[in-house]
Amino acid sequence: MGQTLQIERANQLKNKPDVSTIKFGTVFTDYMFTNRYTSEYGWSEPSIIPYQNLQLSPSCQALHYGQSVFEGLKAYKNGDDVLIFRPDENFKRMNQSLSRLSMPEINEENALNALLELLKVERDWVPDGDGQSLYIRPFVFADEPFLGVRPSESYQFNIILSPVASYYGAQLNPSSLYVESDFVRSVRGGVGFAKASGNYAASLLAQKKANELGYEQVLWLDGVEQKYVEEVGSMNIFFVRDGELVTPKLNGSILPGITRKSLIELANYKGYTVKEESIHIDDLANDLHSGRITEVFGAGTAAVISPVGRLNIHGVDHIVNDNQIGPVSQDLYDHFTDIQYGRQEDPFGWVVKL
Amino acid sequence: MGQTLQIERANQLKNKPDVSTIKFGTVFTDYMFTNRYTSEYGWSEPSIIPYQNLQLSPSCQALHYGQSVFEGLKAYKNGDDVLIFRPDENFKRMNQSLSRLSMPEINEENALNALLELLKVERDWVPDGDGQSLYIRPFVFADEPFLGVRPSESYQFNIILSPVASYYGAQLNPSSLYVESDFVRSVRGGVGFAKASGNYAASLLAQKKANELGYEQVLWLDGVEQKYVEEVGSMNIFFVRDGELVTPKLNGSILPGITRKSLIELANYKGYTVKEESIHIDDLANDLHSGRITEVFGAGTAAVISPVGRLNIHGVDHIVNDNQIGPVSQDLYDHFTDIQYGRQEDPFGWVVKL
Repeated sequence: MGQTLQIERANQLKNKPDVSTIKFGTVFTDYMFTNRYTSEYGWSEPSIIPYQNLQLSPSCQALHYGQSVFEGLKAYKNGDDVLIFRPDENFKRMNQSLSRLSMPEINEENALNALLELLKVERDWVPDGDGQSLYIRPFVFADEPFLGVRPSESYQFNIILSPVASYYGAQLNPSSLYVESDFVRSVRGGVGFAKASGNYAASLLAQKKANELGYEQVLWLDGVEQKYVEEVGSMNIFFVRDGELVTPKLNGSILPGITRKSLIELANYKGYTVKEESIHIDDLANDLHSGRITEVFGAGTAAVISPVGRLNIHGVDHIVNDNQIGPVSQDLYDHFTDIQYGRQEDPFGWVVKL
Repeated sequence: MGQTLQIERANQLKNKPDVSTIKFGTVFTDYMFTNRYTSEYGWSEPSIIPYQNLQLSPSCQALHYGQSVFEGLKAYKNGDDVLIFRPDENFKRMNQSLSRLSMPEINEENALNALLELLKVERDWVPDGDGQSLYIRPFVFADEPFLGVRPSESYQFNIILSPVASYYGAQLNPSSLYVESDFVRSVRGGVGFAKASGNYAASLLAQKKANELGYEQVLWLDGVEQKYVEEVGSMNIFFVRDGELVTPKLNGSILPGITRKSLIELANYKGYTVKEESIHIDDLANDLHSGRITEVFGAGTAAVISPVGRLNIHGVDHIVNDNQIGPVSQDLYDHFTDIQYGRQEDPFGWVVKL
């Protein structure tokens, strides 16, 4: 990067779809951002090009040795304004992921500028329906045609855009979690804190098991003792305990969610007490049973807040708040999304206006 | 698979390179095998096609969520014969990897037949120089254009071929290992036993650290206690202790190497005692210090046997057998490679003749 951003115009634009009917992550806009890294020239070919297939060698490093990381964030429409939620945080975290996987870091400022330029070109693709948004997927992968276990000498940094409907439709339906005690997602010293592609593939079998047992998602325990609550795989987890918010503290194997971080800041701002701590699964079971814990929710980019109504711990089902969203979850969800859509003041400087 | 294998001829063939001068994993043959899976039709398009770039959507699942596994094996030339070493074991292990990553299994028999057909077409690419071979890389990855954490609904199974020189040149030069006690490769309940792409990307940072400290490769410890010897990342590890062979027992986080398995069988056949056990790193240090352990070597497809001459355990360098290959390592290496190249009888039925 550091070089001038080139824009190559498409000959023909796609028809805009009815966003309310499309499936998440299946429709992409007319353009994408791309930049190329080589060990000789660094990041040196930033450009906005028509959305198109990638031409990759069958020996492309990422397909064999997995150097591949991604980010996810959203742009929202408010009248004529397009608002992006904390994009700087995503590029900062992307660099942490890149570093852990021995991949070259990007220039965060240039990346943000590139994203803004891309969004200017694609402004009409940001949907304005209730709860709709434009999902933004930056990703970097190794594309050197070489079979050998060492860092690749060439990479692609791409940003693609996908209009998405509300994650929930009209209301927040509580989901169910299965606490996994056989499979392990990550362990300290590993890559759990990175948005590395391999983490997600590794999680699918436990996800399938949870589904077969009648639960929607997996709640992961730590990899060492298999006793401490970590995350849901695509979300961080929060509990309302004695009226206070509690979430597992970051330990290297938990993804440092930007929604997690922002929720903690918002909750503090709103006067809630927030605690980041190690949460033993037996304590969680006791506190659910005794009623000390009154609400459970996941936090992530896709759904912002996803209330949990049922939680299976070592074979015992715990129903949370009569399987309804609770008042704290609803309060935080409303305030958080109001800031994202520009319906309420943003006292944190989180929202970037295009 | 199950359908007829189609062959599409190339218009022009490449000039064969001087294999003694090429870099491992950079030159590929004229053809590749490819098959495509969809959840609707299964594996249904097996064909041999000219080696060519893959056309993948920017939202290709493997690049974002890491459903990608591979295998590695070799074909050897002996006069007019082309010999392949235990290909059935590779396809069997590939299915174990596929299963762990929630990917569709292949039909092992069809895969073996496809490989043999591909090798018939590419017979002239199997080099006949001393120590040379044709490296075979089967791999499967998810190619559905969809951003979402669930198993892909389409996949590609490809086999590509790369002529390679002897890993060592004229002789076996001992390598150096650094025992890693911060980074962790895998943990029980994870995907360490699978040849999953993500495992390799996750290992690169520790590899870099080892290199910077002056060691060639990492010796990994277990992910739970960080006290038990696991593997070298691209090789399994063996010790000669009191004249017996010892190797870490498979535990779910160690890759079940085919060279490892075959060496154990060969060593037993030759009258060595072989023990698979949990090896505590402190015991290893003591046994190296006292001289109980007289040889250390890695075992893998690339090098077969890679003697270790220096081993750093928690800051202390241990020199093994004066940094020379030892008699047991040499004996096993010679016998093993003699079987692979058809220079000695194969009492195990390992070698498949084309």
